Amino acid sequence: MTNEENKPDWKRKLYKIIYHTDTPAGKLFDLVLLVLIIASILLVMVESVESYANKYGTFLNIAEWIITILFTIEYIARVITINNPKKYIFSFYGIIDFLSTIPKYLSFFFIGSHSLVALRALRLMRIFRILKLARFIGASNNFIRALRASRVKIAVFLSFVIILCVILGTVMYLIESGEDSGFTSIPRSVYWAIVTLTTVGYGDIAPVTSLGQLIASLIMIIGYGIIAVPTGIVSAEFATQPNTDAKAKKAIEEPETKTCPGCLTSDLRKKAQYCYVCGAEVK
Amino acid sequence: MTNEENKPDWKRKLYKIIYHTDTPAGKLFDLVLLVLIIASILLVMVESVESYANKYGTFLNIAEWIITILFTIEYIARVITINNPKKYIFSFYGIIDFLSTIPKYLSFFFIGSHSLVALRALRLMRIFRILKLARFIGASNNFIRALRASRVKIAVFLSFVIILCVILGTVMYLIESGEDSGFTSIPRSVYWAIVTLTTVGYGDIAPVTSLGQLIASLIMIIGYGIIAVPTGIVSAEFATQPNTDAKAKKAIEEPETKTCPGCLTSDLRKKAQYCYVCGAEVK
Amino acid sequence: MTNEENKPDWKRKLYKIIYHTDTPAGKLFDLVLLVLIIASILLVMVESVESYANKYGTFLNIAEWIITILFTIEYIARVITINNPKKYIFSFYGIIDFLSTIPKYLSFFFIGSHSLVALRALRLMRIFRILKLARFIGASNNFIRALRASRVKIAVFLSFVIILCVILGTVMYLIESGEDSGFTSIPRSVYWAIVTLTTVGYGDIAPVTSLGQLIASLIMIIGYGIIAVPTGIVSAEFATQPNTDAKAKKAIEEPETKTCPGCLTSDLRKKAQYCYVCGAEVK
Amino acid sequence: MTNEENKPDWKRKLYKIIYHTDTPAGKLFDLVLLVLIIASILLVMVESVESYANKYGTFLNIAEWIITILFTIEYIARVITINNPKKYIFSFYGIIDFLSTIPKYLSFFFIGSHSLVALRALRLMRIFRILKLARFIGASNNFIRALRASRVKIAVFLSFVIILCVILGTVMYLIESGEDSGFTSIPRSVYWAIVTLTTVGYGDIAPVTSLGQLIASLIMIIGYGIIAVPTGIVSAEFATQPNTDAKAKKAIEEPETKTCPGCLTSDLRKKAQYCYVCGAEVK
Repeated sequence: MTNEENKPDWKRKLYKIIYHTDTPAGKLFDLVLLVLIIASILLVMVESVESYANKYGTFLNIAEWIITILFTIEYIARVITINNPKKYIFSFYGIIDFLSTIPKYLSFFFIGSHSLVALRALRLMRIFRILKLARFIGASNNFIRALRASRVKIAVFLSFVIILCVILGTVMYLIESGEDSGFTSIPRSVYWAIVTLTTVGYGDIAPVTSLGQLIASLIMIIGYGIIAVPTGIVSAEFATQPNTDAKAKKAIEEPETKTCPGCLTSDLRKKAQYCYVCGAEVK
Repeated sequence: MTNEENKPDWKRKLYKIIYHTDTPAGKLFDLVLLVLIIASILLVMVESVESYANKYGTFLNIAEWIITILFTIEYIARVITINNPKKYIFSFYGIIDFLSTIPKYLSFFFIGSHSLVALRALRLMRIFRILKLARFIGASNNFIRALRASRVKIAVFLSFVIILCVILGTVMYLIESGEDSGFTSIPRSVYWAIVTLTTVGYGDIAPVTSLGQLIASLIMIIGYGIIAVPTGIVSAEFATQPNTDAKAKKAIEEPETKTCPGCLTSDLRKKAQYCYVCGAEVK
Repeated sequence: MTNEENKPDWKRKLYKIIYHTDTPAGKLFDLVLLVLIIASILLVMVESVESYANKYGTFLNIAEWIITILFTIEYIARVITINNPKKYIFSFYGIIDFLSTIPKYLSFFFIGSHSLVALRALRLMRIFRILKLARFIGASNNFIRALRASRVKIAVFLSFVIILCVILGTVMYLIESGEDSGFTSIPRSVYWAIVTLTTVGYGDIAPVTSLGQLIASLIMIIGYGIIAVPTGIVSAEFATQPNTDAKAKKAIEEPETKTCPGCLTSDLRKKAQYCYVCGAEVK
Repeated sequence: MTNEENKPDWKRKLYKIIYHTDTPAGKLFDLVLLVLIIASILLVMVESVESYANKYGTFLNIAEWIITILFTIEYIARVITINNPKKYIFSFYGIIDFLSTIPKYLSFFFIGSHSLVALRALRLMRIFRILKLARFIGASNNFIRALRASRVKIAVFLSFVIILCVILGTVMYLIESGEDSGFTSIPRSVYWAIVTLTTVGYGDIAPVTSLGQLIASLIMIIGYGIIAVPTGIVSAEFATQPNTDAKAKKAIEEPETKTCPGCLTSDLRKKAQYCYVCGAEVK
């Protein structure tokens, strides 16, 4: 706080604008930033298309320099306005901001390093922060809780899938390695197994032997069958939560009772001092 | 209504036939229209197949002219019979009807514009209105409500998927752009990421480098894992609805209470004859 | 029944064996039949593989004749033993049995008609009857009821999917027809749209234009998003059934009550003649 | 136990280390084993990549020999320390351990048999035992119970899918066998049907005739539609379980009753002081 005091006024103002979103100025800043980020992504995309790169090369280059400079200014502003800059610089977003700004400068010294500008795509993640999208998801607490509760199971499930792919891929390698069907190495075979089990199926690698196709069919049917599992796990959490709720509710509704010595009324409340039926005093 | 009065009788009749479906004539009109629409679609389809186009060219052309004229008559009828034509003309269906009728005429003046006849496919949407299919879906109010309730979450989920694809696509571009594996530009790489994450997997673009295949595998497993999410979100809504019901029921079942005149204890049971706190008799 | 009387004894016995499965003989018959069916399928499969067909041609041919004759005997037995043969002959299984037996004989007169022997695969459906697999599924009445209850919605959903594919396919045709990317006709484009929306993705047809790939991406994400819908619909039924059960139970549990004129106890049972609190007589 | 007695001390110690995981030494042993297994898999994978095999051939060979020897020692240790070795040797893991150790030795006598080293991938399954991953899954008893309860239905469902594929594959063979579209034999066609129904879609085999593509579309939509079924079946179990719980709870909550001495009415409430039928006083 004291730090806040002896901090020049403009800094505090700027800080508010950059890091807070509740003020009009802050909202505007975020909006501009959002537009800039998307624009920069589009720029990088367009530039990566050769035909465009050749046509509008110079224009794209200039535009990119402008954006890079704007990002640089933003980065510096973020660093100087915050109380302890280290916190920002080494934060997740801080690193991304740095990585998405520096490559353009590097392209002076190292040829090719420019293509790293593509890393700018990572800035897209800031959209979540700006639009507070997380909040919407967060709204579905049930869902998040279910996901969190089942994260171990899902991890186990995925590790199981991967192990399955390693084993099946190896087996397929033993079967198909002879043929000219792309199973040139175990890693490739494992890759193929994943492609198949997840029902993606590129077809760049595909079994040709009868036995290979038989096993492939098994993998597909397994994959098709266990698609239900993640859904099932998550649904399971949903299915079980009501139960827990019910239990909780039951606990609340079910007050401990005591019996009236006079009329043996059995459902007196714990705190009752007199039986509500016969009025007898109950200790 | 006054407008209705000074409207010639035949117009009112025609209006009933075209816009109402409860009269026998209306039902017949809809049926004929339905058949015509499907016929026109089939015509356009058949015509697009070169071999057929060459064989039955003239016949197809005539048939199409007939349908076009019928559609024109329908369109005009709709315009003149309705009270304020603007409302229809600029309505969703009005525009579709117009777009699906006009191209054939344009084909006189502009060569090639004929192919726009294909837009006629949009008229298929009228099927929903004619068969009132929406009603059937609407029947499952629960389902619709669940979808509506979770539409924000689904939107967020999809935007998350898209951002993920942009980032992963860009990364893959940095890795694979050197190879001859179709990752010629970032947009294409993003396209590939979507193809992969949605487990479609054409195989027209597929990674060849080990690192590329490793990341591709990750994308597939992510895509395979998060297939559960939309289902989970929707199911979540279903799962939560019963809860609300339960609450409502609870509220109803909650027993009425009465207050003790002596100590003002407020939660005496309806049937209590003595206050369980002070033992005072309560009537 | 009278018909049963004047029916020779051996016929009645044979009928029991063929049509009933509760007797040991009947069980044996079904088992043999099952083996024969599977054997016949394997035969047809093996024969369709050229290399094998050339090697073991004669053997396969003999084996097939044996099975054909056995099937013929079975068919005749079924016809003569049943009371009104028409019922069987024109029944679903009767037609399948006929179709799976006759082609081999036709192969005398018409060359090539032999390949129709493949229709024998249809006999596989008899497995369901023999193993009474339906029963297992039937066991999950809830599930069947849910499916039946939601069959209209699923039909609507599928018709919606198909219409969507027709429209999107047509649009893609307008975009891609110029390129050499397989979108040679609208039917093919629609076929492609289905291949894409169902996330099958062969890749024999794939967009090459940027706009085409953009729309393709949209289709994929739609397809990926609405995979949840059928599940959602079915789950919806499950979700709603408990509710109805609950309601039913509630109705049962909720007995009408009357109030005691003496002590105003409010929850006397309908059939109570005396208040259980004060003993006052209640009319 | 007596067996335990006259067993040398070091054996008992070693046994504890190898077969128990609760001691520090046991934990260490498992950890080392885990690392070794993963290392061995990576070795086999790397070796299967030709380029690496050529470069680091000798190093890889040595490394593999080391691991093989370590595995051999482990195997022997497991055999001699356990009370009745047969139990281990012919156990599931025992066989896997043997199969993953022996091929390297065989490679002396039989050329090529070395590639069987890939079988070592099977040892990955030991990870489940070491990490006790099963436990995590086991934690979700509900889920396991649901899976077990619905295993028959899933089996029936899969068999139904397979039969469907056989039939559709055969039909496609009859349609497409003429064309040059890969439907060279029924087995291949069935394989294609599975590839399509599971939405994998390699595209190495794809219909070219209009009729073939029509049927293919049907298969895809069926496959897309019945993806819900396994999920539905499993969810069904979840949906039904709460009901049973509810029943159980109801039984518990059911209030104890007492019998009227006068008219033997059996369902008097616990707190009733007078029989509501005959008005007799009940203590």
